[in-house]
Amino acid sequence: MLQPQMDELDRFLRSQIASFEPEIREMADYCIDTSGKRIRPTLVFLSGWRESGVVSPDLVRVAAVVELVHLATLVHDDIMDEAEVRRGRRAAARAYGPVAAVLLGDALFSHALYLAAQFPTTEVCLAISDSTRKVCAGEIIQTLRRRTTNVTLEDYRRVIDLKTAELFRISCSLGSRLAGYPEAYVEAASRFGRHLGIAYQIYDDLADYFGEEQRIGKTLGTDLASGKLTLPLLMLAERLGPEERAGLLEEIEGRRPPQLPLHLQQMEMHGVFAAVTDAVQAEILEARTALDPWAKLAPSPFLLGLCDVLRGQVAGLQGKAAALAG
Amino acid sequence: MLQPQMDELDRFLRSQIASFEPEIREMADYCIDTSGKRIRPTLVFLSGWRESGVVSPDLVRVAAVVELVHLATLVHDDIMDEAEVRRGRRAAARAYGPVAAVLLGDALFSHALYLAAQFPTTEVCLAISDSTRKVCAGEIIQTLRRRTTNVTLEDYRRVIDLKTAELFRISCSLGSRLAGYPEAYVEAASRFGRHLGIAYQIYDDLADYFGEEQRIGKTLGTDLASGKLTLPLLMLAERLGPEERAGLLEEIEGRRPPQLPLHLQQMEMHGVFAAVTDAVQAEILEARTALDPWAKLAPSPFLLGLCDVLRGQVAGLQGKAAALAG
Repeated sequence: MLQPQMDELDRFLRSQIASFEPEIREMADYCIDTSGKRIRPTLVFLSGWRESGVVSPDLVRVAAVVELVHLATLVHDDIMDEAEVRRGRRAAARAYGPVAAVLLGDALFSHALYLAAQFPTTEVCLAISDSTRKVCAGEIIQTLRRRTTNVTLEDYRRVIDLKTAELFRISCSLGSRLAGYPEAYVEAASRFGRHLGIAYQIYDDLADYFGEEQRIGKTLGTDLASGKLTLPLLMLAERLGPEERAGLLEEIEGRRPPQLPLHLQQMEMHGVFAAVTDAVQAEILEARTALDPWAKLAPSPFLLGLCDVLRGQVAGLQGKAAALAG
Repeated sequence: MLQPQMDELDRFLRSQIASFEPEIREMADYCIDTSGKRIRPTLVFLSGWRESGVVSPDLVRVAAVVELVHLATLVHDDIMDEAEVRRGRRAAARAYGPVAAVLLGDALFSHALYLAAQFPTTEVCLAISDSTRKVCAGEIIQTLRRRTTNVTLEDYRRVIDLKTAELFRISCSLGSRLAGYPEAYVEAASRFGRHLGIAYQIYDDLADYFGEEQRIGKTLGTDLASGKLTLPLLMLAERLGPEERAGLLEEIEGRRPPQLPLHLQQMEMHGVFAAVTDAVQAEILEARTALDPWAKLAPSPFLLGLCDVLRGQVAGLQGKAAALAG
């Protein structure tokens, strides 16, 4: 349904590559590939949905901005994660080296802000730069907490609120605002985006344990290997006996090699998969509730449809979890 | 003379630290130290100079923006350079690790753009984000050329134009424009800034060979060790015989350990120091010429004074060069 919008977004992003210095174009092109899921642009287009077939240049531009900010964080993220694979192929940090990846991320960031500054008022630029600050803050806090074990559920939630939910939120906020919807709906859409973002990140963290590499396009077990306490491990740690727990925390601290298969078994045994999916569902419910008063507005059915898509993705992980349990 | 402006800038920058998430404040504070030379803010304040004692909040904000962009590039730069020391103390990438440094730089970048977006129109945000793109491009091109030997003088000039002169240029451009000076002067001040920036970067590259570590606050010989062909080495390579030249290029390619003392001697022998200082002087002359028609405007004497400061700094390097020759 969003094909015309996505095609236009791809055209727009490709046209931006020409504005980079020649030496950088290949790298930029590598990052702005078309294999991504484009979740944030989807939120922009759906929140600002008016009628079929209409492609608003403002929405295309904002979609490009949020996607570029997201791509920049991915490029920098993969340096931290030392990830081998991103979206099914070599991460930029591997393909071009970490040094070039730092700068490539910077170039994508500043290009995003440059596009944001081309709106007639400072509104988009202010919103995007503020969101970008928050995304960076979330990433820093997460990084500083690597290989530390005194991470609480509140810490975890705060980090994903900053690093993921913020960009989901601003995508919905700017999409609906630029489409001229009333401020009350803009606020509802923002809340929707925020909760969907939290739900999505929890799902993503679960997929790092229960996903299929081919499907999610990245190496499994990265969080455990890099000492990142996400919800599945936090919940597992809560449920383990003192001895097993101590072992897990030593792995997080990097004092013991990571035991992924063991922890997958433990997660199954202690119902961690179910507990984490419950957390996703709770956020999805919050997202839906935010849109309740706007159920009849044009964008709402489509936004609510995204909740079902995410539910389906979570259900897709169930198969592997069940296989491990059996 | 700029003490009230600089004090206000420091106050403003310190007040911004409170707007970062608590975990990041210490790192941000570490970067926004007061030991820097604040060259770009100086350009903002002088280009927009009206009368003594007046501190314009707009200029303070723009000065903060350009300084934050500069600090962000320094933080990322030091990751590339694997620099131990910056401004006389441990580089952020050493103090907090390269991973946190990547993100800290991002946070400083996005905060700069956030401040830029707070002007009533998009003018500052557009200018700053465009400059930031160019600075990043310059850094990327320089990085991609590391350890390669087919770098021309034109390549070198293009890189320093992007990575250094651009931010000098925009500092003068925004400073004079926000102070309400006529467009023709804004353009002249921009040209002045650009040439001063090129002159400054050539001086800086010379100081990497002929400076004193204590004075310039960083490790000498970093460019040679990291395989970066800057003007002193480019001019040396041009002047060496085939065998010595091949040796030097092998060092650049990282196939031989760097021979800093040898090359300092060679530079003296072949008059490289004089040739590089000539290049600095030529750019300073271009900068002066740009301001010629505006010699009587309030800011001009102060801006021209900066040329003399830079001349003095170049002359300061002369002592070591002479000692090597003697």
